Amino acid sequence: MKEQVLYETAAHWFNKHGYHGTSLADLANDLGITKASLYNYVSDKRELLYKVHVRSIEAAKAAQDQAMAEDTWLGKIRKMVFNYVSAITRSPMVTFIVLEDGALAPEQAEEILAARSALDHEFRRWIAAGIRDRSIVPCDPKLVSFLITGGLAWITKWYDPDGPWTGEQVAEAMSAMYARMLSPSFAEELPADVGRILTEAGLFTLPAK
Amino acid sequence: MKEQVLYETAAHWFNKHGYHGTSLADLANDLGITKASLYNYVSDKRELLYKVHVRSIEAAKAAQDQAMAEDTWLGKIRKMVFNYVSAITRSPMVTFIVLEDGALAPEQAEEILAARSALDHEFRRWIAAGIRDRSIVPCDPKLVSFLITGGLAWITKWYDPDGPWTGEQVAEAMSAMYARMLSPSFAEELPADVGRILTEAGLFTLPAK
Repeated sequence: MKEQVLYETAAHWFNKHGYHGTSLADLANDLGITKASLYNYVSDKRELLYKVHVRSIEAAKAAQDQAMAEDTWLGKIRKMVFNYVSAITRSPMVTFIVLEDGALAPEQAEEILAARSALDHEFRRWIAAGIRDRSIVPCDPKLVSFLITGGLAWITKWYDPDGPWTGEQVAEAMSAMYARMLSPSFAEELPADVGRILTEAGLFTLPAK
Repeated sequence: MKEQVLYETAAHWFNKHGYHGTSLADLANDLGITKASLYNYVSDKRELLYKVHVRSIEAAKAAQDQAMAEDTWLGKIRKMVFNYVSAITRSPMVTFIVLEDGALAPEQAEEILAARSALDHEFRRWIAAGIRDRSIVPCDPKLVSFLITGGLAWITKWYDPDGPWTGEQVAEAMSAMYARMLSPSFAEELPADVGRILTEAGLFTLPAK
């Protein structure tokens, strides 16, 4: 079994049933292995949750890093949202897992919360920089960060990889919507039908206007 | 003890610890009553969760109903978001609780999911009607509904009633941001500092431009 499969399956269970509603026995059963062999990978459920959180944060950081080449701060934010939505819809492991109090050990929870807070503050800095370079309309960076994070965190609850929308279509449409909210001047058109957005793997293609 | 207090405290616990991570003993302890007297109100934890869900859905419906007097569909949506954010920030009971699989009995889960789906479809109809009356830019109503619902559901995770922002300020700023995303023409200014929005109880007052 690849570690990747273990973490993706675990993330799926934690999201669906909550930490306390997930047992290693269920998980082993879903993976088609014995509970004993699960212990070759992790020492306990808590460690598994911790590792999924770490990977989730790494994915969010990667979405930020891979957006830095864009010209304006608005462009960077749009690309970051696109990258992050693409990653979430591709792999449930990347998902933003809701942190239940007491699920992690105190020092683990502290580390994860600090890492998330750093991501949030980095995002706020991008928004503030965009207001200064006038690619973003004056707004409250803290609230905008919360608002967009919520929209992204929710995707796990409704996105169905077997449904009518590809991950790239959702990424394209959501990043266009947030860009429209933040753009200072141009009231850009939005994709009117997510399922008809034309995408090629990895390409960032808006429908023709 | 007022029933209201019971439901608010229960909603707080379910949100913070998940359904499976919440026990009636913890809850009774937090309420300062015995577990035995808790049974005067509810027969079990599942019934309590169900009742909180029902109240949460009623609040979302009320937010829709009380927005119907606005002129345009964009205006109705903006007012509905304002109403809902005001209600969430006023009372944790109103909160959109994440539904863990298996937490409710099958027939309860079916009822709650059907009610939420009805709310979602009503919201999509408002967006579609706004596209037709040209108060809303052409967009995909289904995706817009998901995107806004996520932003609203997330509020419980970050809003602190003892923090710098009143519920009305958050309601004002968030409804203005979504209205800006959806407005077809006017690139409206956004509140640049949520804590400086001037609100009077129940009034819907944008800062002067």
